[in-house]
Amino acid sequence: MERVNTSKRLAHLRDLMKERKLDIYVVPSEDSHQSEYIAPCDARREYISGFSGSAGCAVITLDKAALATDGRYFNQASKQLDDNWTLLKQGLEDVPTWQEWTTEQAEGGKKVGVDPTVITAPEARKLSESLKKKAGSSLIGERENLVDHVWGADRPPRPKEKVMVQPEKYSGNKFQSKLEEVRKELDKKKAAGIIISMLDEVAWLFNLRGSDIPYNPVFFSYAAVTLTTARIYVDSNKLTDEVKDHLGTDVEIRPYDSLLSDLTAMSESAPIAKDANATASAPVLKKKYLISTRASWALGLGLGGEEQVDEIRSPVGDAKAIKNATELQGMRSCHIRDGAALSEYFAWLEETLVQRAETLDEVQAADKLEAIRSKREHFMGLSFDTISSTGPHAAVIHYKPERGNCSTIDPKAIYLCDSGAQYLDGTTDTTRTLHFGNPTGMEVKAYTLVLKGVIALDRAIFPKGTTGFALDSFARQHLWREGLDYRHGTGHGVGSFLNVHEGPIGIGTRSQYSEVQLSAGNVLSDEPGYYEDGNFGIRIENMIMARETSTEHNFGDKPWLCFEHVTMVPMCRKLIDPALLTSEEKTWLNDYHREVWEKISEFFKDDQRTTDWLQRETKEI
Amino acid sequence: MERVNTSKRLAHLRDLMKERKLDIYVVPSEDSHQSEYIAPCDARREYISGFSGSAGCAVITLDKAALATDGRYFNQASKQLDDNWTLLKQGLEDVPTWQEWTTEQAEGGKKVGVDPTVITAPEARKLSESLKKKAGSSLIGERENLVDHVWGADRPPRPKEKVMVQPEKYSGNKFQSKLEEVRKELDKKKAAGIIISMLDEVAWLFNLRGSDIPYNPVFFSYAAVTLTTARIYVDSNKLTDEVKDHLGTDVEIRPYDSLLSDLTAMSESAPIAKDANATASAPVLKKKYLISTRASWALGLGLGGEEQVDEIRSPVGDAKAIKNATELQGMRSCHIRDGAALSEYFAWLEETLVQRAETLDEVQAADKLEAIRSKREHFMGLSFDTISSTGPHAAVIHYKPERGNCSTIDPKAIYLCDSGAQYLDGTTDTTRTLHFGNPTGMEVKAYTLVLKGVIALDRAIFPKGTTGFALDSFARQHLWREGLDYRHGTGHGVGSFLNVHEGPIGIGTRSQYSEVQLSAGNVLSDEPGYYEDGNFGIRIENMIMARETSTEHNFGDKPWLCFEHVTMVPMCRKLIDPALLTSEEKTWLNDYHREVWEKISEFFKDDQRTTDWLQRETKEI
Repeated sequence: MERVNTSKRLAHLRDLMKERKLDIYVVPSEDSHQSEYIAPCDARREYISGFSGSAGCAVITLDKAALATDGRYFNQASKQLDDNWTLLKQGLEDVPTWQEWTTEQAEGGKKVGVDPTVITAPEARKLSESLKKKAGSSLIGERENLVDHVWGADRPPRPKEKVMVQPEKYSGNKFQSKLEEVRKELDKKKAAGIIISMLDEVAWLFNLRGSDIPYNPVFFSYAAVTLTTARIYVDSNKLTDEVKDHLGTDVEIRPYDSLLSDLTAMSESAPIAKDANATASAPVLKKKYLISTRASWALGLGLGGEEQVDEIRSPVGDAKAIKNATELQGMRSCHIRDGAALSEYFAWLEETLVQRAETLDEVQAADKLEAIRSKREHFMGLSFDTISSTGPHAAVIHYKPERGNCSTIDPKAIYLCDSGAQYLDGTTDTTRTLHFGNPTGMEVKAYTLVLKGVIALDRAIFPKGTTGFALDSFARQHLWREGLDYRHGTGHGVGSFLNVHEGPIGIGTRSQYSEVQLSAGNVLSDEPGYYEDGNFGIRIENMIMARETSTEHNFGDKPWLCFEHVTMVPMCRKLIDPALLTSEEKTWLNDYHREVWEKISEFFKDDQRTTDWLQRETKEI
Repeated sequence: MERVNTSKRLAHLRDLMKERKLDIYVVPSEDSHQSEYIAPCDARREYISGFSGSAGCAVITLDKAALATDGRYFNQASKQLDDNWTLLKQGLEDVPTWQEWTTEQAEGGKKVGVDPTVITAPEARKLSESLKKKAGSSLIGERENLVDHVWGADRPPRPKEKVMVQPEKYSGNKFQSKLEEVRKELDKKKAAGIIISMLDEVAWLFNLRGSDIPYNPVFFSYAAVTLTTARIYVDSNKLTDEVKDHLGTDVEIRPYDSLLSDLTAMSESAPIAKDANATASAPVLKKKYLISTRASWALGLGLGGEEQVDEIRSPVGDAKAIKNATELQGMRSCHIRDGAALSEYFAWLEETLVQRAETLDEVQAADKLEAIRSKREHFMGLSFDTISSTGPHAAVIHYKPERGNCSTIDPKAIYLCDSGAQYLDGTTDTTRTLHFGNPTGMEVKAYTLVLKGVIALDRAIFPKGTTGFALDSFARQHLWREGLDYRHGTGHGVGSFLNVHEGPIGIGTRSQYSEVQLSAGNVLSDEPGYYEDGNFGIRIENMIMARETSTEHNFGDKPWLCFEHVTMVPMCRKLIDPALLTSEEKTWLNDYHREVWEKISEFFKDDQRTTDWLQRETKEI
C-alpha cells in the first residue's frame, strides 16, 4: 500500500481555511448521497489524508490533522497515513470519537467548517450542538468544498455513464404506480413533497439503472416528488432517447446541479397547511417537505432549515425493501444461475489445487470466478469486490486480495469466498467456506456451529412486527454456548439489481434494526461466521426472503412470517460434524442439498467435473 | 367500578384555565418522580377524569376532554369515564396519540398548559416542538397544579411515613462508597453535580427505605450530589434519630419543597468548566448538572434549562441494577422463604378446592397467600397487587380481582397466580399457573411451550455486550413455531428490597432494552406466557440473575454471562407434556425440581400436606 506525502495538500488546505476564517475543517468520507461506495471524484477524504479505506473521517486544524477509522482499517490506516496525521482508532476505549476530538480542538469559540453536502443534517446538528455546548464554538456549512479546491485539475471528473431503463419484466411495477404510492404517503403526512437523495432510491423509483459507481447500478441524481409533479435531477447527456421516452411527460428532467437552487424556490412556494388558521400570534403554517434522515445538511438548509422539513426514514427506501412477486422471482432465478457459477468454480478450484496441484493466487482464483459468472445469462458485473481468502486471510472479515501482491491459495487450509454479482433480474451475495485437505477439529466444530446458526435463522417463524434485532441471536446461540461469536451483523438487506447492501432492514444489533419490522418481500442475507485471528475464518452466507406462512394456531391478527432461501450452493461436507446436528437440522440440510441438486445440476450435463463435485457435496447426510 | 360525575370538576378547572389564559390543560398520570405507583395525593389524572387505571393522560380543552390509555384499560376506562370524556384508545390504528390529539386541538396559536413537575423534560420538549411546528402553538409550564386547586381540601395529604435505615448486612455497601462512585462519574463527565429524582434511586443511594407509596419501600425525596457535597431533600419529620445518625455529617438534610429554589442557586454558582477560554465571542462555560432523562421538566428549568444540563440515563439507576454479593445472597435467601410460602399456599389451595371442595374467591385466596407470606422472616409487605385469577381471568394480563366482586376459583379451570413480596433482604415476583382438574390438550401444549421459553432464556449463554432485546426471542421461539405469542415483555429488572419493576435493564422489545447491556449482578424476571381471551391464560415467571460463566472457548476479551435462577417453586406437572421437551430441557426441569426440593422441603417438617404436594410436584420426569 502506497503512502502519500500530504504536506503540500495540507498546507494549501490550511491557507484556504485561513482565508475563510475557519480554525478546523472536517472532511467526511461520504458523497452527497451518503453512498456506501463512492465515485473517484468524491474521494476527498482519501485525497487529503492518503488513507484509502472505505470508512473514516479526516479533521484538519491549523496545526494538527486526525484521521478516524474503525477496527477494520487500523492496520491499513497506520500504513497509509504520513507523519502529518494522528490516527483515531474508533471504538477503542479512551480514544475520542472524531466528533469528540473536533470538540476538544474547538474549545474557546473556534469556527469549524464542513461541506454541508457531504454530512447529514442529523450529524451536522449533533456536532453543532456539541461544539456549542461543550466548546462555545460553531459549525459553519461552507458551500465550496475546500478539498476540491486543493485537488484542482487533478480531481477526476464526475462519471457520465449512460442511464438504462429497467423494464417492467424485471421491476414488476410501472414507475407511475410507485409515484402514486409516494403521493399517498405525502397525502397521509400532509407534506408538500419529498426530496429523494439516495441514488438507489431514485433508480428504483423511476425503474432506471446506471453505472456511475463501481458495483452499484446507480447514477448521480436526485428526485423531487409533489402531489402533482415529479422531477429527476440528472445530467441530461446521460439519458438515452429510450430513457426519455420511458419518463415521458410524467417526469420533468432538471440539471443535476440545479437541485439546491430549485429547493429554495420550492420551499418558498410550498402550499399552506390546510388546517392552519392564521392569526397575529400564529403565522400561516406551510406544508413541509419530507427528506430522509440521511439527506445532506445542505438539502435541509436549501429547503429553509429544520423548521421547514420533516426528517423521516425514507418511505421510498421502505417501499424498495419490500420486493414484489416479479422481483422475488428474479431473485430466485439469478441465484440459481449464480449458484451454478459458484459450483462450477468450486469444482474447478478443487481440481486445479488438488488433482492438478497447480499454484493459484487469491486474485487469479477470483478472476476465474468472475469469468465463469460473466457467461451466465443477464450478467451485469460483480456486486462487490470478491473476497477470495486463504488460511489466516479468511479471518479478515473485509479482506480484499491485492492483485500481484496476494497469497497463493493453500490447499491444506480453509478457503473463504464471499462474492456476488449483478444480473438484470437480481443481485447476489454468497459466502462459502471450503477445505480441500484435512480440516482441524476446531475448524469442523466452528463450521458446524456456524451452519447451525444459518439453519436456526432460516427456520425461524415469527409474527409480523418482529425486527431483525430480535432474530440476530438465533444465528449466534450455538456459537455462544461454546463461548464463540462473530463481530459483525448477521444479515443485511439486498437490492433487486441494485445495491448489495440496502436498508432499512437488517439482522443485527444496529439500533435501526430494532426499529424496522421485517415484512413479507424483504430480501436479506443470513451470514453468521467465526474468525480466529491469524489462523482461519468461517462464514456461510445464504440469501433469504421473508414471506407469509401458515402456522398451527396463527395467534393474533397479524400475519406470521418465515424465510425462503434462494442461494443454491452446497455446504462443505468435509467441514460438517453430523454429530453436532439435531435431527431437524439434518433434515434441513438434506432438504437443502436436494433442492440445490434439483435446481442447478441441469447446468452441468456436459460438465462431468462439476456434476461429480455437486453429487458428492449434496449427498444425503 | 364506580363512575364519577366530573362536570363540576371540569367546570372549575376550565374557569382556572381561562383565568390563566390557557386553552388546553394536560394532566399526566405521573408524580414528580415518575414513579410507577403513586401516592393518593398525586392521583390528579384520576381525580379529574374519574378513570382509576395506572396509565393514561387527560387533556382538557375549553369544550372537550379526552382520556388516553392503553389496551390494558380500554374496558375499565369506558366504564369509568362519564359523558364529558372521549376515550383515546392508544395503540389502535387511526386513533391519535394524546400528543397528536392535543396538537390538533391546539391549531392556530393556542396556549397549552401543564404542571412542569409531572412531565419529563424530553416529553415536554417533544410536545412543545410538535405544538410549535404543527399548530403554531406553545406549551406553558404552569407552576401551580390546576387540578390540585380544583381538588382543594379534599386532596389527601402527602404521606409522612417514617424513613428507616437499610443496614449494611442487607445493602452490602456503605452509602459513602456509593457517593464515591457517583463522584467518579461526575469527574469523568466533568459535571458540576447530579440531581437524583427517582425515589428508588435516592433510597438505594443512601441505604434508606420508606413506605410513602404502596408496595414500593421508598419515601418522597430528591438528592443533589456534587464533588464535595451531598444533599437529601426530604421532610425532616420523617427522619428518625437513627436515620440522622446514619447520614451523619456526610449528608445535608434540606426540606423536600426547597429543591427547585436551591437548584437555581446551584446553577448560578456552578463551577467554571476548566478547559474553557473566555473570549468576547465565546463566553465562559459553566460545568453542567446531570439529570436523568426521566427528571421533570421543572427540574431542568430550575437548573437553567436545556443548555445548562446534561440529560442522561441515570448512573445511579445503572449502578443500582448491578447488585453486589450481599444483595444477590439476599435475593437467593428471600426467594427460598418466598418459594416455601407459595408452595404452602398452593398445597393448601389444592386441598381446599379439591379434597374439601370449599368455595373460595380470588381475593380470599390472595388474602390467604398474604397471611402465609407474612409469617416468613423479614417480611415487609407485598411487592405489588396479587394477581389471583381463575379461568378466563388468567387471560387478562394485568388482572386485579376486586374484593367482594370477583369470581370464585373454578377447580376445573386454569388458576394463575402472579405475586411477590418485600423482604428486608430482597424483593420477589413469581408467577405459577396451576390446574386442579383435567387440563385441555391446548392448555398443556401452551404451558409446555411457555415452559420451554422459560428454560431457553434461563439456559442462555451470551457475551457481555448482549442486550435484553436480543435475548427476548429465545423465550418466544417455541411459541412462535406454533403460531403463538404473548403481548408483553419477557422480563423486567427487580430491586433489592426496592421496586419490583426497575430499569434500565429488561428483556423485551422496548427500545431502551436494545441500548442497555446486561451485566453480572443484574436481577431480572423470566416470564413468557400465552393468553387466549375469554378462555385461559398461562404465565410462568422465575427470577434470574446474570453472572459470569466459563465457556469452552471464551472467545474475545469480554466476560461470558449466564443466568442463575433464584425462584424456588415447582412447575405444574399436570400441565407439562414431556413429549414436547428435549432431553436438555428434561434435564433442566429435573435439576430445577431437585434444587427446589433441597432448598424448601426443610420448611415443612411438620406440614405433611405441603411435603406431599412438594414431593409430587418435584418428582423426576
